[in-house]
Amino acid sequence: MTVYFYRDRFVESGQSAVPIEERAYNYGDGIYELVRFDQGRPVGLDEHLERLETSAAAVRLRLPFPLAKIRAIVVEAASRVEAPVVDVYFQISRGEAPRVHAFPEAEPVLALFAKPGKTYTDEFRRAGVSVITVPDERWSNCYIKSLNLLPNVLAKQAAVEAGVYDAVFVRDGFVTEASASNVFGFHAGTFHTAPAERGILNGITRRFIIAAIRELGLPLCEERMSAKFFEQEVEGAFITSTTMDIMPVCAINGRVLPSLAENSPVWTVLNRMRELSRGAGLSVG
Amino acid sequence: MTVYFYRDRFVESGQSAVPIEERAYNYGDGIYELVRFDQGRPVGLDEHLERLETSAAAVRLRLPFPLAKIRAIVVEAASRVEAPVVDVYFQISRGEAPRVHAFPEAEPVLALFAKPGKTYTDEFRRAGVSVITVPDERWSNCYIKSLNLLPNVLAKQAAVEAGVYDAVFVRDGFVTEASASNVFGFHAGTFHTAPAERGILNGITRRFIIAAIRELGLPLCEERMSAKFFEQEVEGAFITSTTMDIMPVCAINGRVLPSLAENSPVWTVLNRMRELSRGAGLSVG
Repeated sequence: MTVYFYRDRFVESGQSAVPIEERAYNYGDGIYELVRFDQGRPVGLDEHLERLETSAAAVRLRLPFPLAKIRAIVVEAASRVEAPVVDVYFQISRGEAPRVHAFPEAEPVLALFAKPGKTYTDEFRRAGVSVITVPDERWSNCYIKSLNLLPNVLAKQAAVEAGVYDAVFVRDGFVTEASASNVFGFHAGTFHTAPAERGILNGITRRFIIAAIRELGLPLCEERMSAKFFEQEVEGAFITSTTMDIMPVCAINGRVLPSLAENSPVWTVLNRMRELSRGAGLSVG
Repeated sequence: MTVYFYRDRFVESGQSAVPIEERAYNYGDGIYELVRFDQGRPVGLDEHLERLETSAAAVRLRLPFPLAKIRAIVVEAASRVEAPVVDVYFQISRGEAPRVHAFPEAEPVLALFAKPGKTYTDEFRRAGVSVITVPDERWSNCYIKSLNLLPNVLAKQAAVEAGVYDAVFVRDGFVTEASASNVFGFHAGTFHTAPAERGILNGITRRFIIAAIRELGLPLCEERMSAKFFEQEVEGAFITSTTMDIMPVCAINGRVLPSLAENSPVWTVLNRMRELSRGAGLSVG
């Protein structure tokens, strides 16, 4: 069961909504967010909305409503889906306009869908997922959560066809992020992840994890992580996103990582982060 | 007056056509072409269709119809618009599917609109247009005519706000192309343009121009053109696209280029190319 909102109201169906001459449809000219509600409670909703504002400012897209109204629509959408875990996806396009590259005289448009979210068992997490590395051929401004996701689509598809779960991007010899998640490595007692520069999305879950690592007093190296180090040396790794929260990596390009012991730092952080995010969250401002 | 085609038929309106959960709308996961019909005759239609196939193969998108059928739909669309010059825009999306990055089990979808094309007077061309240079922050595969055009939108908007006509991309110190056109320079009797590598779209008009330059026996340097050379040294320049064909540049970052004399090489090529493209075209395969 999926709930849809388009432009100014909840609609019965997501069919036949969008015009053909529409900026997101013709140009990918828009931004988006995805917020998870767990047992009715949103995870990092304010952080997601704040990032929406950041993305909007970066592409100079005026939001169609005040942030408080968007927030209310998102919460209302989640409440309309009867499921323990609900994902609310919402995107804002520069609107309907004759196809000319420069910004149109048009009203920006909010489109949203909400549906039950996919969850993972502890057994699945404990087993972990495999990843491959692929060249990061995306544009320079991946800190913007834009609708230009074709390279992410192609990377994820490459992973699927390689029989693994996700693809980790490598640019200029350094790990940036994965096709739809951030990447952490663990080596010699220290966690590693790329800094939140222009080339990666500063994931909300990434920020929760960093806060959890810090709260636990564990060493964190938030610096560029070389692909060689990631591919050949890390003892542990995980990827993070709103829909996976924290997902251990069991193999990188076929190199098998040690399984996660009950008391390993990765497993500890994983569980602590998940507790924290359930328990009203950390400050990640 | 605009003619629309969506999925499998011509439709009365472009409104309310596309689902919210649609790959082009959510990911920019698709490709496109734009073909001009001048007095009922298409310019480079086969070349455009061939490039559509190239783009489709590059992103591994199955075309919804055989190329001959797409061709027939494009021709039919043009014939339905009563105007001396008609532009037919058509895009192919990976289709409607629940939002998951990897390729869906879905039918690809053709969407098209056709409308009177914008034309330019000889006086406008003779005066030329101004351009600025901007950093090329796009992805690595701009030879694919994809729907991920947000950086092009932002570049064109930057040009408009700078009071000029277009923005010329510079990557690693070299001119690639403009926001929606290819770029040529002219200096000391030689034409210059970037080679058709992965970083630029191999424009159909670009190919016609190169054929015209060769037919006229004029020197052409199809090698990387440094931004410094373009910004500071070229005596002449022009940009090329399906909708502009060849448009002289009168100023680059405020540096005024000499006006186009009636018998200048740029003007000669311009007119020769326009004759050739009207007169059934050159072989540009």
